[in-house]
Amino acid sequence: MAIVLGDNEYGKAETRVVRIVRGSPGEPARHDIRDLNVSTALRGDFVAAHLAGDQSHVLPTDTQKNTVFAFAKERGVDEIEDFALALARHFVDDIEPVRGARVEMDEFAWDRIEVDGRPHEHSFVRRGQEVRTATVSIDTGGTRVVSGLRDLVVLKSTGSEFKGFLTDRYTTLGETDDRIMATSLVARWRHTGTSVDWAASHADVRALLLARFAEVHSRALQQTLWEMGRAVLSEHPQIAEITLSAPNRHHVAVDLTPFGLDNPGEVFFAADRPYGLIQATIARDD
Amino acid sequence: MAIVLGDNEYGKAETRVVRIVRGSPGEPARHDIRDLNVSTALRGDFVAAHLAGDQSHVLPTDTQKNTVFAFAKERGVDEIEDFALALARHFVDDIEPVRGARVEMDEFAWDRIEVDGRPHEHSFVRRGQEVRTATVSIDTGGTRVVSGLRDLVVLKSTGSEFKGFLTDRYTTLGETDDRIMATSLVARWRHTGTSVDWAASHADVRALLLARFAEVHSRALQQTLWEMGRAVLSEHPQIAEITLSAPNRHHVAVDLTPFGLDNPGEVFFAADRPYGLIQATIARDD
Amino acid sequence: MAIVLGDNEYGKAETRVVRIVRGSPGEPARHDIRDLNVSTALRGDFVAAHLAGDQSHVLPTDTQKNTVFAFAKERGVDEIEDFALALARHFVDDIEPVRGARVEMDEFAWDRIEVDGRPHEHSFVRRGQEVRTATVSIDTGGTRVVSGLRDLVVLKSTGSEFKGFLTDRYTTLGETDDRIMATSLVARWRHTGTSVDWAASHADVRALLLARFAEVHSRALQQTLWEMGRAVLSEHPQIAEITLSAPNRHHVAVDLTPFGLDNPGEVFFAADRPYGLIQATIARDD
Amino acid sequence: MAIVLGDNEYGKAETRVVRIVRGSPGEPARHDIRDLNVSTALRGDFVAAHLAGDQSHVLPTDTQKNTVFAFAKERGVDEIEDFALALARHFVDDIEPVRGARVEMDEFAWDRIEVDGRPHEHSFVRRGQEVRTATVSIDTGGTRVVSGLRDLVVLKSTGSEFKGFLTDRYTTLGETDDRIMATSLVARWRHTGTSVDWAASHADVRALLLARFAEVHSRALQQTLWEMGRAVLSEHPQIAEITLSAPNRHHVAVDLTPFGLDNPGEVFFAADRPYGLIQATIARDD
Repeated sequence: MAIVLGDNEYGKAETRVVRIVRGSPGEPARHDIRDLNVSTALRGDFVAAHLAGDQSHVLPTDTQKNTVFAFAKERGVDEIEDFALALARHFVDDIEPVRGARVEMDEFAWDRIEVDGRPHEHSFVRRGQEVRTATVSIDTGGTRVVSGLRDLVVLKSTGSEFKGFLTDRYTTLGETDDRIMATSLVARWRHTGTSVDWAASHADVRALLLARFAEVHSRALQQTLWEMGRAVLSEHPQIAEITLSAPNRHHVAVDLTPFGLDNPGEVFFAADRPYGLIQATIARDD
Repeated sequence: MAIVLGDNEYGKAETRVVRIVRGSPGEPARHDIRDLNVSTALRGDFVAAHLAGDQSHVLPTDTQKNTVFAFAKERGVDEIEDFALALARHFVDDIEPVRGARVEMDEFAWDRIEVDGRPHEHSFVRRGQEVRTATVSIDTGGTRVVSGLRDLVVLKSTGSEFKGFLTDRYTTLGETDDRIMATSLVARWRHTGTSVDWAASHADVRALLLARFAEVHSRALQQTLWEMGRAVLSEHPQIAEITLSAPNRHHVAVDLTPFGLDNPGEVFFAADRPYGLIQATIARDD
Repeated sequence: MAIVLGDNEYGKAETRVVRIVRGSPGEPARHDIRDLNVSTALRGDFVAAHLAGDQSHVLPTDTQKNTVFAFAKERGVDEIEDFALALARHFVDDIEPVRGARVEMDEFAWDRIEVDGRPHEHSFVRRGQEVRTATVSIDTGGTRVVSGLRDLVVLKSTGSEFKGFLTDRYTTLGETDDRIMATSLVARWRHTGTSVDWAASHADVRALLLARFAEVHSRALQQTLWEMGRAVLSEHPQIAEITLSAPNRHHVAVDLTPFGLDNPGEVFFAADRPYGLIQATIARDD
Repeated sequence: MAIVLGDNEYGKAETRVVRIVRGSPGEPARHDIRDLNVSTALRGDFVAAHLAGDQSHVLPTDTQKNTVFAFAKERGVDEIEDFALALARHFVDDIEPVRGARVEMDEFAWDRIEVDGRPHEHSFVRRGQEVRTATVSIDTGGTRVVSGLRDLVVLKSTGSEFKGFLTDRYTTLGETDDRIMATSLVARWRHTGTSVDWAASHADVRALLLARFAEVHSRALQQTLWEMGRAVLSEHPQIAEITLSAPNRHHVAVDLTPFGLDNPGEVFFAADRPYGLIQATIARDD
């Protein structure tokens, strides 16, 4: 059996680009900001680069970085799905040896600083750790847009139970009718097309995820993920599937009886590791 | 010269305690949450522990952790300055060999999840990466309360210049009339006493820092820090001094001329390292 | 189109278990240490858990953690591939609703502390940041063992060039005959079976990767990866394929001409972001 | 009371410089590498910069970075204490408004890759996560050199007890005759002068710290720190004091009795947070 080159790709990871728009119609002093972390990865005919070190088909990762900056100027940064689509199409359409491209975007949100109750024209404060994401993949199979978010940290202090589970000789966990449920959610949803109001869609999906997390009386984190995903697919016909990944940020009720105190769901230790990790895809049956 | 034990302390770092309050007057189903990272450090007569391994004066760090949890239940978590004061006083007053205590608190903020426009009773979303801090130190010199915040990330896209600086043979930096100024602010302010409305004081200091950052036309990050600190001390007579630490998150305008593009303050590369680090204390002349 | 549950799994991530073996034949005072981070993930018939919150098929992640600890005692920790095989087989064979399991291991290496030139019997120092990894997957398709390593940071200060690459209107990078090449290597290789001397195999693969990195005159990082992978497959018939992922840790030669200094490959700035990311699988043609 | 500028400083943090030396006498193809993270901070008459934004006394942090690179070429990087001394003296002696300087160095160690049993001439592998450190401070009080290390992770699996400690109503911890003791050591030692063989001194201090950690039967982490520090000061008359900071990386013996198993110090859970934090300075009585 000969030794051969299998799957391979290369690209530039984590180009941190900040795009300022200076002035808008009627508001010449107003600035807007888009703050992105962009990663590009290319696939194609790169056998000679591996076997012989021949770079003639290889567009340097430095050039990919330059392209991100130039596109940020030339076409501007609108919604990250559109910006990623433009970059991916460019690499596949304009660079001859490239057969496929994947462009990943993280967007960091900023709010305007409030001064005397009014939003400032050019001063901003980072909103939080939550990140909006988009991944565009183009290859011979077509174009695929996946929107998402990560580091959306949520917690409910009641309305969550865990009981009736399978046990074996290694089980010591007790059942509970009332616990804290918390997670740092990662969600990624794939669209059926590209004619989408990305900003509105993202805001609505996020609101649905939060609302279902809050409202579902949870018998398991699995159930909550299902209900979150189902709500998104029910409300958004253009979303084909959604994948949710939820580390269970365990909050352990502290035993205060040695100190003569009870603890009816009031004092918790927030544990780091280990953590449960629950992942599910909710899709359409086709 | 004999070898002797010098400064020493010990304690429990990073006890992660979450305190839920279940119900409030008239709202039995409403939960409130306080989410803290607590570190305690004790000083006192611990020579025998070092020289002979004699632990008879040493309250275990495990006990310090337990104390944090028990206090969270017994007295509850109000403002972190008060909670830290209670813990520090306990260690100094109640544990005989302890002569001094320092209690540090990080507080992570949560917002209620909005469902159909109404804040949910027991479901929360983490507000962001910004952390509210408090440090209480008690020793023979008295009691010292330092409030603060960290990871407050701010950026202004104009209104900042840097020119007229000192140069030497190693200087290559050009002068600029207009740049991005950004930082991840750490601020710590010391109070003259302990009769303070901590929550209101913190909110007002934070607002002043943000407002001055936004409004001051900056000729240097040093100047902005000075103006921020001066505003805080002017408005808050009970604050003795404030220390500001500001890593300069450099945003470098990208040279787009190789691509036939100009870049009038629109496209920036957000650099990680190295970074300028500016620190200043603003105090009262007494 | 109905909404349905797609791929799903759950498990316990990052159980940090340290196993001490006290005494060995002829050396009763000699301790040995194995230091692991273990993650387990189960697949199976968990539809009811999602759709109805019915946990009767769900072995809690807490039980999975307990199983790791109990196995560490009962059967001991030998090579991580064997330990992972035992755990994965247990979950699939002994827990009725489980159809597939994936067990991931990170192993942190320790050296004995040398005292007066002799290795100490029970005192250890962490060897470094490099991590040995193993992933065992069992499902209806069979058993799959993937050994690996990550955070193996290597650098060569010459013997690397980059030229003759494809250019477009966004290319500004110059060609170079001599540069620093550095990476933090991630390697994962799949075995054809399970009758392997895992420790010897791992040591030899690691040595081959290092040797090829050092010896290959590199015309591209792609070429170096290919040569590394080819050497491993050539020497190890029982390895079916190897995947290498190499972030290009760019070291940029500093322009010292403004200071009247030349820089013939002597002073470099080690950049954080962005970074090239090169990934390739080398396999057998079957 | 007027509002005044108090303590202030500014500088460039985390300049990552890699210095290659190409060739040595008789070995023209041999390369050597020094890999540093350098932070500089200046003090002096910077009131006008704060109060008026007047930068005429301010040497930009960008220039400080350039100086690090230029010095790395011009004088080379020998031991980090010497390199830091040279930089600190330059800033204080040559830049008129500067009254004090502090230069901090982290050094990352590399080993040569072994190929066929021989160390390679220009290919290296990172030794580990341990970092060698140096801090040089020059001000009106003189010159101060502090050598050190951090992230030296050590563990002993026996020879450590913890009993006879102070108890109160919040104490639940049991006494133990035999536990794991582990820490990630930070050590910093101050020299009385600057005529020191820095490399030999560092190696010897490190070996003493490791040996005492291994050999002392520990009744408390405090005692171990004291014995480590005492050994260093006894053997090194030119070291004035040493400060040790040791997070107690708790390893909790897992209760295996629910599974019908005993656990005589064999299976441990390595906990992340909270952790004990023990700090002590050992000095000379003068």
